[in-house]
Amino acid sequence: MDVAELGKVPREVLEKVVFRRLGWRRKDVIVFPRFGEDAAVLKLDKKTLVAAMDPITGSEERIGWLSVHVNANDVAVMGAEPRWFSATILLPEDGLSKLDVIMKDIDAACRSLRVSLVTGHTEVASNVSTPIVIGHMLGVPVGRKPVTSSDARPGDVLVMSKSAGIEGTAILASAFREKLAGKIPEDVLARAEKFYEKISIVREALKLAERGLPSAMHDPTEGGVIGGAYELAEASGCSFVLYEERVPVAVETEAVCRALGCDPLKLISSGVLLAAVPRRLLEKCLKTVRGLRVIGEFRERREGNVVVRRGGREEEVKESVRDELWRLLSGLSVSP
Amino acid sequence: MDVAELGKVPREVLEKVVFRRLGWRRKDVIVFPRFGEDAAVLKLDKKTLVAAMDPITGSEERIGWLSVHVNANDVAVMGAEPRWFSATILLPEDGLSKLDVIMKDIDAACRSLRVSLVTGHTEVASNVSTPIVIGHMLGVPVGRKPVTSSDARPGDVLVMSKSAGIEGTAILASAFREKLAGKIPEDVLARAEKFYEKISIVREALKLAERGLPSAMHDPTEGGVIGGAYELAEASGCSFVLYEERVPVAVETEAVCRALGCDPLKLISSGVLLAAVPRRLLEKCLKTVRGLRVIGEFRERREGNVVVRRGGREEEVKESVRDELWRLLSGLSVSP
Repeated sequence: MDVAELGKVPREVLEKVVFRRLGWRRKDVIVFPRFGEDAAVLKLDKKTLVAAMDPITGSEERIGWLSVHVNANDVAVMGAEPRWFSATILLPEDGLSKLDVIMKDIDAACRSLRVSLVTGHTEVASNVSTPIVIGHMLGVPVGRKPVTSSDARPGDVLVMSKSAGIEGTAILASAFREKLAGKIPEDVLARAEKFYEKISIVREALKLAERGLPSAMHDPTEGGVIGGAYELAEASGCSFVLYEERVPVAVETEAVCRALGCDPLKLISSGVLLAAVPRRLLEKCLKTVRGLRVIGEFRERREGNVVVRRGGREEEVKESVRDELWRLLSGLSVSP
Repeated sequence: MDVAELGKVPREVLEKVVFRRLGWRRKDVIVFPRFGEDAAVLKLDKKTLVAAMDPITGSEERIGWLSVHVNANDVAVMGAEPRWFSATILLPEDGLSKLDVIMKDIDAACRSLRVSLVTGHTEVASNVSTPIVIGHMLGVPVGRKPVTSSDARPGDVLVMSKSAGIEGTAILASAFREKLAGKIPEDVLARAEKFYEKISIVREALKLAERGLPSAMHDPTEGGVIGGAYELAEASGCSFVLYEERVPVAVETEAVCRALGCDPLKLISSGVLLAAVPRRLLEKCLKTVRGLRVIGEFRERREGNVVVRRGGREEEVKESVRDELWRLLSGLSVSP
């Protein structure tokens, strides 16, 4: 998640070292870990459970808040209602004072989603230098079955909620506060920092899922909206075309990105829901979730992934999109 | 867990800062977090789930192995069969090479318990200095209902499996290898280091639980067998008497403890199952699990907690037992 992506383990290593070592192959595990799969699907007799686990390692600002929401998002994009959260909080030796803020944030985020904190562990550890929160979320599908990120089909419409680069806007506004202060109006910067508040996509994801509307859903993190579209297309064995001019970009995001010289469409985007929707269900989707926007469509794999930039220039996307955050933060000595 | 206990957060802080901030109070959460409760009990319609989450922060030796077993133990003492494990692995910047060993250990431990690794996250993080594995285990009760640590009753017999200080024996043998090498035979030391292999109590806990035999079960960590008996008694609102001469101590544990000058009965004891058993069910218990030993009994709270030492001296136990590991390791500059 967020800045932690700096240290994401390469895909080859995961495939070779991790994904082949999954213990006993239980028959009640419907979705096992694989690249790009953010949650597990489990069977308890006839009941289905969805589980997701992610740490927040890189952001000191709102780690408690983020840990609940990123895990809730991972569960919700599978069409499951987040119910039970577990958290492990690791604090540096002088960090006990930070526990209060972290717990307040976890509590508030859980309440906002009607989720209970059910178990966990809190520890002052000599081998961490800043606080880390590791979250685990369990949820239950709201529709007949879970939604995956691998069932987008050629012809499906690509829709998104809210606006591009929500999480990245908040991170950059905090990390580059001083640099940005001279370049963009103070009230815009203050609002940009508050973009953490918009980070949940549970509401929109569950509204679509309970009506059985999306073929596939995704929570775009690394590589932003373009990276997320690429991951949906890859997982589904098709390709996408995405039109820059159709992608909503908030005033605050626009200002931060212009001042720092980065592309809001390639900026980490927790807070945005991406979905593939069969054309015949599009109207119903747009009525179900306010502010949902059509930004492109899926097509046959051989047609390739294309971003049509404002002005008509076509940009091919042939591999995972490097997040703008990495580039900007690599020039920054302190971690935000 | 293990050395991590060095940095355990004080009970007052947990009660004030953590346990009051549990998000939304869902009615399907049967057991919420509280001091000494290592797992949650959740209801999914008529089905029951047990969830536990613990990090391994302090031991470089076998963190993958331990992360599976300590979480499986926490689930098993609630009378639930561990099924689904999730793991987050945080590595220091030069630590990617350690991932292979950690994953091999997780895989082996999961296989030994017929548990699947279902989701998680792997990351190289700039704010950790040695590898950390955070585990989350989900399980399903094998009996009619979960077993807690709070239902021991005056008159119940206190039984234990295996021998005292199993985990501590392995940790001390690794941490003080050089110091011990001159004092105890090499083969004894080598066997002591392998005590990590004995760390699972899942088998014995589930055998008792599926027959509905124990009133309460516990996985004694901090403070060893005496500390575990204290926690069982505290949680159940009664007290205990425990006879030192009845507690089995392995030759390897005896040798390590004598050489380092510590009490095996107060040495961290993952690998030992403690259970409270109604007297009328004792015979059945002893037949069900081989090597189970009666080491004491529970009585009315007002009688107080007493350890009867060899020779007859009575030692009162009025508060949480400080683990011998802390005392020994605080004199050691490197973390084991």
